[in-house]
Amino acid sequence: MTTMRSLETDFLQYVREMMHYQEVLHLLFWDVRTGAPKKGLELRSEVIGTMSAKKFAMSISMEMNRYIHELSQTDRYEKLSPITKKVLAHAKKEYDLLIRLPAEEYTAYEVAKANASRAWEEAKQKSDYAIFLPHLEKLVAYSKRFISYWGYQGNPYNALLDQYEPGMTVDHLDEVFSKLKAKIIPLLHRIQEVEDKPATSFLYKEFPLAKQKELHHFFLQELGYDLGKGRLDETIHPFAIPLNRNDVRITTKYNENHFSAGLFATIHECGHAFYELNIADDLLGTPLCEGASAGMHESQSLLWEKMIGRSKEFWQHYYPILTSYNEDQFKGIERDQFYRAINSVSASFIRIEADELTYPLHVIMRYEIEKALFNNELEVRELSDVWNQMMQEYLGITPPDDKSGVLQDMHWSAGMFGYFPSYALGYLYAAQLRNTMRNEVKDIDNLTEKAEFTSIKQWLAENIHVYGKMKDPNQLLLDVTGEPLNPDYLISYLENKYSEIYGLKATSS
Amino acid sequence: MTTMRSLETDFLQYVREMMHYQEVLHLLFWDVRTGAPKKGLELRSEVIGTMSAKKFAMSISMEMNRYIHELSQTDRYEKLSPITKKVLAHAKKEYDLLIRLPAEEYTAYEVAKANASRAWEEAKQKSDYAIFLPHLEKLVAYSKRFISYWGYQGNPYNALLDQYEPGMTVDHLDEVFSKLKAKIIPLLHRIQEVEDKPATSFLYKEFPLAKQKELHHFFLQELGYDLGKGRLDETIHPFAIPLNRNDVRITTKYNENHFSAGLFATIHECGHAFYELNIADDLLGTPLCEGASAGMHESQSLLWEKMIGRSKEFWQHYYPILTSYNEDQFKGIERDQFYRAINSVSASFIRIEADELTYPLHVIMRYEIEKALFNNELEVRELSDVWNQMMQEYLGITPPDDKSGVLQDMHWSAGMFGYFPSYALGYLYAAQLRNTMRNEVKDIDNLTEKAEFTSIKQWLAENIHVYGKMKDPNQLLLDVTGEPLNPDYLISYLENKYSEIYGLKATSS
Repeated sequence: MTTMRSLETDFLQYVREMMHYQEVLHLLFWDVRTGAPKKGLELRSEVIGTMSAKKFAMSISMEMNRYIHELSQTDRYEKLSPITKKVLAHAKKEYDLLIRLPAEEYTAYEVAKANASRAWEEAKQKSDYAIFLPHLEKLVAYSKRFISYWGYQGNPYNALLDQYEPGMTVDHLDEVFSKLKAKIIPLLHRIQEVEDKPATSFLYKEFPLAKQKELHHFFLQELGYDLGKGRLDETIHPFAIPLNRNDVRITTKYNENHFSAGLFATIHECGHAFYELNIADDLLGTPLCEGASAGMHESQSLLWEKMIGRSKEFWQHYYPILTSYNEDQFKGIERDQFYRAINSVSASFIRIEADELTYPLHVIMRYEIEKALFNNELEVRELSDVWNQMMQEYLGITPPDDKSGVLQDMHWSAGMFGYFPSYALGYLYAAQLRNTMRNEVKDIDNLTEKAEFTSIKQWLAENIHVYGKMKDPNQLLLDVTGEPLNPDYLISYLENKYSEIYGLKATSS
Repeated sequence: MTTMRSLETDFLQYVREMMHYQEVLHLLFWDVRTGAPKKGLELRSEVIGTMSAKKFAMSISMEMNRYIHELSQTDRYEKLSPITKKVLAHAKKEYDLLIRLPAEEYTAYEVAKANASRAWEEAKQKSDYAIFLPHLEKLVAYSKRFISYWGYQGNPYNALLDQYEPGMTVDHLDEVFSKLKAKIIPLLHRIQEVEDKPATSFLYKEFPLAKQKELHHFFLQELGYDLGKGRLDETIHPFAIPLNRNDVRITTKYNENHFSAGLFATIHECGHAFYELNIADDLLGTPLCEGASAGMHESQSLLWEKMIGRSKEFWQHYYPILTSYNEDQFKGIERDQFYRAINSVSASFIRIEADELTYPLHVIMRYEIEKALFNNELEVRELSDVWNQMMQEYLGITPPDDKSGVLQDMHWSAGMFGYFPSYALGYLYAAQLRNTMRNEVKDIDNLTEKAEFTSIKQWLAENIHVYGKMKDPNQLLLDVTGEPLNPDYLISYLENKYSEIYGLKATSS
C-alpha cells in the first residue's frame, strides 16, 4: 500500500515538474512576442530548443514509460484518484504521440518553428510571402512526416484535428461547415443588398494611443480581470497565455486609426484568460489545468468579445463612458448608430477584424487550404495565389498584398496546422452555451445593461471553467446544454441579430 | 584522437546546455523584478526552484564528474584549447563548491530566496524590518551551513568573498578599506566645513515621468546602447541582466521629484551592459561569457555613471539638451551650478543615491556588518538597530525608518552575502583603469566634451570586456595598468575633483 501510494505521488510530482518546463516555455514565448530584443532571438531559439527537448524527453522517458505501465495495471489503476486517472490518460496519449517522433527531429522542429516565427514577422512587415515560404515548407514537411509516424484514420488531416479538438474529423467538419455556409452566404447576400448600411467611418478617426491604453485598462477592470494575476502588453498578433493558474497574461495591438479592433481584441483575450484563471485548485500542476480544447477555449473568448462585448445591452451602459475618452470622435453619433457600426457586416481581408457573420467563411477557407495541403492536393508555394483566389470566391474580394492575405495569421509560423477549425467550433459552442446560460441566469439582459457581470462569470466558471481538461469538449457540452453539438443555435443567433440590425424580414427557415 | 576531440566537444555542448538554463533563470528573475503579476509569484517560485535544481544537478552530475576527471588527465589536458582549459577550471571550481551541498537543501534554499525576495519587497514598502527578519535569518543560516560544508581559510567570511572576487580576503579588505577611510573621512569633514555649498534644491523639482522616460532613452542612444540588444524597464532596485550575449537588459527607477537618481541609475546599468555586450564571440555559450568579477563589473558601471556621467566635460555638452526636456526646472541655473549640484557631497541614507565620496563608507559599513554576522558577533534580529547606530557613527545621521535603512538594498534578500565589498573594489578598479585610459586614449576630455564616446568604448572593450572571465580580475588589472591594485588612484581622483568643487586648498599628502 505504501509503495502504491508513493508511486502515484511520484508520478504526480514528475508531471508537476513537466508543467514547470511548460511555464518556462510559455514565458519564453511571451517574452519573444512582447519585446525581447531582436538581435538576441537567434541565441534565444537555442534555449527554446533545449527546454522543449527537456520536456519532450520527460514525456517519453523510461521513467514515464514505467509510470504508465505500472499505474495502468488493473489492481493499481482502480485505486487511483479520478484526477490521477485522467492525468495518466493524458500522459499516455502524449507518450503514444511523441514516442514515434525521433528526439533529434523534434528538437530541430522546435528550432525551425522559432526561426519560422521570426521569418513570418519579417515577411509580414515587408508583405513578402517569399521570405516566409521556405520556412513554411519546412514546417509542413515536418508535420506530414509526423503524421506518417503516427498513422491516422480516414484522412491524414484527422491526425492534426484530433490534437486540438479531440474526436473531430474531416467528415464531421465537412458536414457542419456546409450547413453553416448554406445559411451564412444567403444571409450575407441579403445584407449586401440593403441600402441603409451602418455608417462606420467615424470608427477610423484618430484615437490617441495613450487614451486607448487607459480605455483598455478601464474595460479590464470593469470585466474583472485581476491585474494581480495578469498583465496587458502589446504584440503583433494578440494572444492570451497562461504562465500558471495565477498568472494569465493577455496582449493586444493598438491602432491609432482603428481603436475598436484593439479594444475587442483585449476583450477577446480577456475571455480566454477567465477560462484559465478559474480552473479548480485540484488540477494545479497537472496538464488538466487547461481549457478542454482549443474550440472550447475559443467559445469563451468569442462569448465575451462578440456576444457580450458587441451586444446592444453592453453599449447601453458603456457608450457614454467610451465617448468621454475621445469626445470629438463620437460627436453626433447616437448609441444605436455606434451599435450598428461595430456590428456592420462586410467582406474584409483580415480574419481577426472580421465581423461575426463573415468570420466563419475566413475559417472555412483556411480549413479547406489545410485539408488540401495535407492531402497533397496543394503545394506550399501555391498558397499566396490560392489564398487570393479563395478570398475572391468566398467573399468577393482580393487582398492587395500578402500582409493582408496569406501572411496575416501567426498560426502556421508556429506549426499550428489543424487549429483554425477550432475558431468556428468556438462560435458553435459559444452560441449553444449562450442559449443555456440565458435560460439559467436570471435577467441576463438587464444585468448586462447594468454592467453586472458577476452572475455570468460565475455561471461560466462553475459550468465550464472549473473542469479544465477533466471533461472532453463533447462531454462538457452535453453536460451543460443537455444535447450534442447543434449548429442551429449559431444560425438562429446570427439570423436574429443581423435581421434586426439590417431590418430584414424573417425568412421561412 | 577522434574520441579525444569528441569528449572535448561533448563537454562544451554539455556546458552550453547549462548556459541555456542560466538564460532561463535570468529571464525568470527579470520577469519577477519588472512586472510579473504578484499573485502568480508563489507558483512561480516552484518553477525557479525546479530550474535551479536542474542546473545544479548538471553541475555535479556523474557526467560532469567524468568530464572533469577524464579531461584533467595530463595527456588529454595538454591538447585542450585554452578556452576549454579555462572552462574546465571554472566547472571544477563550481563542482567542488556544489558537490558538498545536499541537493534538497540547495533547492529549498532557492525557494527560500524567492520567498525572501517577495517578503523584502513587502517589508520595504511597509518599512517594517520584522516582515523580512525571519526570511533573512533563514538565508544567513543557509549560508553559514554552506560555509561549514565548504570549509575556509583564515576567516569564514573569506569563503563568501572569494565567490564574487576570487582571491579576496578579510585581511586584504581590512587593509584597503582602512586606507580609504583614513583619507575619505578627513576630506568629508573639510568639505562639511565649507560654507559655499552647491545649491541642490532645483534637482528635486517635478520632472514629468513621461519626459524622464524620453530623456533616458535619449541618453541610451547617445551612449550607444543598442535597443536591438536590450531594453529598459522599471523596477524597485535597478539592475542589469544578461540573458544572452545579444540580449542584455537594464532597468531603472523613475522618481518624479528626483530625476537625476534615475538618470544616473540608467547610465550605471548601461555601463554594466556594455561589459556583457562586448565579450568575445569565442566565449559564447560558456560560463566565461561574463564579467571577470563583481568588482570588475562594478568598475565599468561606475566609470560610466560617476567618472564620465558626472564629469564637467560630459555636461559641457549635454546640459543645454537636458534643460530642454524640462525648462522650468533649470531656469537661472548655470551649467557649473548644475555640475556642482550633481556632485554635491552630503551624508545621506540611501547607498545608490550617495555621492562618490560618501559611497565607500556605505559599503564599508555593510562589509563590517556581514563580517560580524558570519563571525557570530552579531544576530540578524539586531540588524535594524546596529544599522542605525553605524550610520550615526560613520555618517553622523540616523535613518528615520527601515525603508531608508536596513531594508534599502535587495542583495540580502537574494542571499548575496560577500557581494557589497565589490562595490568599493569597483571604485578602486575604476580609478586605476581610468588613469591608464587617460594616458592611452588621445584627447579624452575633448572627446567627452564633444560626446564622442567611440574611442573610450573601444578602449574598454578591447582591454577589458572581450576577455570575459578568461582572466582573473587581478591579472586583468595588472595586464592593463601594469601594476597590482593601488588605492592611491581613487584617493587622488577624489581629492582633486572635490577640492576643486569645494574650493579646498591642496593638502600635503
